[in-house]
Amino acid sequence: MEVIERVREMQQYAETLRNSGKKIAFVPTMGYLHEGHLKLMEEGRKLGDCLVTSIYVNPTQFGPAEDLAKYPRDFKRDESLCKGVGVDVIFYPGDLEMYPEHYQTYVDLEGVTQNLCGLSRPGHFRGVATVCAKLFNIVKPHVAIFGKKDFQQLVVIKRMVEDLNMDLEILGVSTVREKDGLAMSSRNIYLKPDEREVALSLSRSLKMAKKLYEGGEKDAGKIIGEVTQFISRHPQAKIDYVKICDTTTMKDVERLRGKGVIALAVRVGVARLIDNYVFGETLDL
Amino acid sequence: MEVIERVREMQQYAETLRNSGKKIAFVPTMGYLHEGHLKLMEEGRKLGDCLVTSIYVNPTQFGPAEDLAKYPRDFKRDESLCKGVGVDVIFYPGDLEMYPEHYQTYVDLEGVTQNLCGLSRPGHFRGVATVCAKLFNIVKPHVAIFGKKDFQQLVVIKRMVEDLNMDLEILGVSTVREKDGLAMSSRNIYLKPDEREVALSLSRSLKMAKKLYEGGEKDAGKIIGEVTQFISRHPQAKIDYVKICDTTTMKDVERLRGKGVIALAVRVGVARLIDNYVFGETLDL
Repeated sequence: MEVIERVREMQQYAETLRNSGKKIAFVPTMGYLHEGHLKLMEEGRKLGDCLVTSIYVNPTQFGPAEDLAKYPRDFKRDESLCKGVGVDVIFYPGDLEMYPEHYQTYVDLEGVTQNLCGLSRPGHFRGVATVCAKLFNIVKPHVAIFGKKDFQQLVVIKRMVEDLNMDLEILGVSTVREKDGLAMSSRNIYLKPDEREVALSLSRSLKMAKKLYEGGEKDAGKIIGEVTQFISRHPQAKIDYVKICDTTTMKDVERLRGKGVIALAVRVGVARLIDNYVFGETLDL
Repeated sequence: MEVIERVREMQQYAETLRNSGKKIAFVPTMGYLHEGHLKLMEEGRKLGDCLVTSIYVNPTQFGPAEDLAKYPRDFKRDESLCKGVGVDVIFYPGDLEMYPEHYQTYVDLEGVTQNLCGLSRPGHFRGVATVCAKLFNIVKPHVAIFGKKDFQQLVVIKRMVEDLNMDLEILGVSTVREKDGLAMSSRNIYLKPDEREVALSLSRSLKMAKKLYEGGEKDAGKIIGEVTQFISRHPQAKIDYVKICDTTTMKDVERLRGKGVIALAVRVGVARLIDNYVFGETLDL
């Protein structure tokens, strides 16, 4: 396994692979890897001749009051986990390599970023789209793999790739959960033992939403109301949003007709947790 | 020579070329070709195994009050000119191929777009950067060639390519001029015979600026004053801007120390003409 820190070196490596007919699969991450990331890498391993992952805590997707400085990092552990799942190359750039002095170009999306995390984290998706555009140009993948836990992020990336005619495939992979149902996230490390129990209200409320939907409830407001009430029973849970949206436009829907997703963002202590469920799909809980 | 109208087909064509080790040179244009474009193509012919040009009047770089609808078009003539200089492929997409329904992704630059045409044409460089990002992803060139007549555009594209880590080279080519000094532009067709004489004040004033500079004048305000006065002698010439900027940041400079450019935008009748001169370089007049 190679660790490449320079943009130019990574591009040349990728170009050589492509020119020799090899298929590149790519899993971008912010490191502090968990089983969710490893599942993405296992999918990538199947799809490409060469599996590249990036480990980069991207500053432009964090707001000024957010957890950039204390975001968990452990490169040695990440490196050994990557080896274990057969990663060929870790792209591991520094901030000045990604955003040199006088940096000034950003990718902006208008529609799909205007709801959910786009409302509570202004500029977040601008940072995500920009860093992904950069990483795709550096790693030159044929396929890039993202987790469905960050549902809106996946929609944003797919939209950007289609709009800017980036010639690669974007694959979404189901959320991996802890045994108790908590969606895997690097930010779960922020949870204190008592908060962990509170955090379970997210996945449990999604299970409830699924049940309501399968029982015939199509009124988004009613499902949102039940879910909100369920989570709010825990005074430690501070709801950022509970919304039901169209899975393509990310606009709020009033009734579930087309493909809809219920998406949650809840603060528990210092951790801001997100989770979601696409109605009609399975939920591994 | 092939004419390709579909994004997917162009990408596959380009990918096949790249995989067989061929070098792609690319000249993006809005058509209605003149000798300036043909010079870019001749440069491209030398640099690539395959020379691709695009002919696309990009709507997103025109403001609502601008000349999108009446921008000159003549595909048959363009096609025959392209054949004449050895173009291999014309990429000639329609609007719905480039901006399908629900399109919503834009590339924005912060610094270099904030002066000159960025002030008088809000959104213009957003449209330019976006369409070039798209075209680069579609045509997959190793080198793309732009005219220095659109000096700020060249700076914007170079900055975007560097910032977003697009793996291609951007080459700027000197402005081609009519015998009388008028910079070649598709928009020169708007000029009535009497306006043509007025239009010459742009290149003539640049010649004067060069002479002042070579005579030791380094005060930007003084050079701008002389040039403004020179052009203003023609009541038909409506100055949009006369500015002296740093060639990298595009910020106004007060004294010519580093590399500076004098850039002009002047309306003559319905034509908005631009021209520029980089101090210390040659001026073919």
